[in-house]
Amino acid sequence: MSPEQARAAFREGLRAPTSGFSAGWTQANLISLPREHAYDFLLFAQRNPKSCPVLDVTEPGETSASIFDGDLRTDLPAYTVYRDGQLVDERAEVVDLWRDDLVSFLVGCSFTFEAALLDAGVPVRHIEAGGNVPMYRTSRQCRPAGKLSGPLVVSMRPVPAELVATAVRVTSRYPAVHGAPVHIGAPEELGITDLAAPDFGEAVEVRPGEVPVFWACGVTPQAAVMHSKPPFAIGHAPGHMAITDARDSDYQVP
Amino acid sequence: MSPEQARAAFREGLRAPTSGFSAGWTQANLISLPREHAYDFLLFAQRNPKSCPVLDVTEPGETSASIFDGDLRTDLPAYTVYRDGQLVDERAEVVDLWRDDLVSFLVGCSFTFEAALLDAGVPVRHIEAGGNVPMYRTSRQCRPAGKLSGPLVVSMRPVPAELVATAVRVTSRYPAVHGAPVHIGAPEELGITDLAAPDFGEAVEVRPGEVPVFWACGVTPQAAVMHSKPPFAIGHAPGHMAITDARDSDYQVP
Repeated sequence: MSPEQARAAFREGLRAPTSGFSAGWTQANLISLPREHAYDFLLFAQRNPKSCPVLDVTEPGETSASIFDGDLRTDLPAYTVYRDGQLVDERAEVVDLWRDDLVSFLVGCSFTFEAALLDAGVPVRHIEAGGNVPMYRTSRQCRPAGKLSGPLVVSMRPVPAELVATAVRVTSRYPAVHGAPVHIGAPEELGITDLAAPDFGEAVEVRPGEVPVFWACGVTPQAAVMHSKPPFAIGHAPGHMAITDARDSDYQVP
Repeated sequence: MSPEQARAAFREGLRAPTSGFSAGWTQANLISLPREHAYDFLLFAQRNPKSCPVLDVTEPGETSASIFDGDLRTDLPAYTVYRDGQLVDERAEVVDLWRDDLVSFLVGCSFTFEAALLDAGVPVRHIEAGGNVPMYRTSRQCRPAGKLSGPLVVSMRPVPAELVATAVRVTSRYPAVHGAPVHIGAPEELGITDLAAPDFGEAVEVRPGEVPVFWACGVTPQAAVMHSKPPFAIGHAPGHMAITDARDSDYQVP
């Protein structure tokens, strides 16, 4: 499916995690905040580049973006709505909630490098399982910025021990979509006590001989919203990403 | 010289381009703007990441930064001062001009990857000559953000034709300090009519068999200040950088 076709399908009601969709096209996290909070967020992103690599920023009220030639209010599979830091709704579109002062940030997503992992022979369990990636709120705090603070959120993929180095090497080439892992093994060091109980997404099996590998996750901005309680925010539903018109290769280095 | 020693020398009056100083330590461009312009600048930087890779941002009025354990008002070799977009002064320190509302941005500098170029056998002419790198205002416009717009500024290094690919490969690994070249050969395509007459820094010899290679330059924010005319701004004097406490390897990928 092309990005345009995928966005049309979501607009018409398809609701599914987007891992594996539109291979080769960059996926992005969405966070929309009132203009008065935009500087704090952009600074938060600059200070936490592993979790919040900003790919695009709209003008206030805009419903498309330079890398997203669709409607940000309808063309993602599902949205979250926050009031005073509380998740008050999860829904298929946000047309009636849109405001002229909302600045939308598209933040890189690790789904982008999954095609590269598969190409390199690294299995991706949640794609095999046809589900959503498991995500965990960690005990590690982000660097605050203005009124925004909160914990680092990570995604986890179990990787066979002999392929962990390959997974690091491959994902290092995509710093704009979270890049190299932030943590390998030892989930308890991140404050994760039970891999089978993720905070977002779905648990996956970690088989004998596999190591849990953790990447910084673009749900981190939503964790900051929950922690910092701005009056209003809209996000994507975790795992249900914006599929952009940028190519994965646009973000590959060197 | 360690970063601390270099900063002390500049504080005590040494005035010199910093190319080749404190090898292995990251150098940075400085732009300080009143808080009311900070969002526009941060957005400008996000939209022009090749020329404006932001390494650090201070709180308003702060005189040091997380990667710069010195005094931003005195510890660079030379400063520029702008009023309404006019360069009104170039001086050794800016203590008496400092304001409580100034937000300082440290922006990556291509001097950072010069040690890696030398290690790879790529000669760096302005280091050989003991001078400043030549910089040019181009005809290519940056993506505007709010009230900020202006041309891309580039630095130029002549590279022997057989080493151009090596120079690309080596510098690609440092996206946070301008990364891969933006242009190779054909200076007229960038609107540069005379390589011997740079807009900033000093001209260098381009020898037979060498190709002029252009990297995005952190003087671009100052060109935007000149073009957009905010009431007040402080910058570093081109080529006279902030020497930070970050290591070049911190910014190397993969």
